[in-house]
Amino acid sequence: MDDTKRLIATFLDSLERRDWPGFEAILDHEVVYEMPQSRERIRGRQGYVQFNRDYPGDWHLSPHRIIAEDDAGVAWFSWTLDGETGDGIAFFSVVEGRITSVTDFWPEPFEPRPGREHLVERW
Amino acid sequence: MDDTKRLIATFLDSLERRDWPGFEAILDHEVVYEMPQSRERIRGRQGYVQFNRDYPGDWHLSPHRIIAEDDAGVAWFSWTLDGETGDGIAFFSVVEGRITSVTDFWPEPFEPRPGREHLVERW
Repeated sequence: MDDTKRLIATFLDSLERRDWPGFEAILDHEVVYEMPQSRERIRGRQGYVQFNRDYPGDWHLSPHRIIAEDDAGVAWFSWTLDGETGDGIAFFSVVEGRITSVTDFWPEPFEPRPGREHLVERW
Repeated sequence: MDDTKRLIATFLDSLERRDWPGFEAILDHEVVYEMPQSRERIRGRQGYVQFNRDYPGDWHLSPHRIIAEDDAGVAWFSWTLDGETGDGIAFFSVVEGRITSVTDFWPEPFEPRPGREHLVERW
């Protein structure tokens, strides 16, 4: 569990530092990356590293919460990009100390549904 | 860890079955519920149960993946509502067998960003 937690922390940190060799080293050769919101998938470490290298803009990632078991984990992190900020969530599978799958989500702001104002406060 | 996993499974199952006494029983009196996307917060078990009881439509939840440590966990689940379907993600804090915080995310579909077609496949 602690090893997986460290692995996920390294994942975010190596992305943040654009440490591409360090990022590549923690990925399984056959890693599968999926974005369910756009139904996009990348198979293999080479393509997934390139995808991140090529991602445009001055983006930054900062871990908020990492939860891990031995073979699976999740990171909830904050991102900033060109003055915008938001939350990201990434699920991981891990085999023998390497990440074999990454599935991430990028939730966007929305307005509260009407009719529940009496129950909620805003921040 | 296994206890927390079971607690999260019970959270989803009691919601799905509209088992409000069962749902209430796993929540701390002072549970805090947050939806970062709409910046809404509910403090206390009574309001949070009511929020769920009152949530309109014939919604259903089905667990996809639960990851847990002793005092924290996450559920990635599918939801359906009035013919629509999607993913939800909920983070939990747990103290002495009761849920003390729930923070959830509701990511929506988006179109792939142009320029990465050579790296990705669609599904």
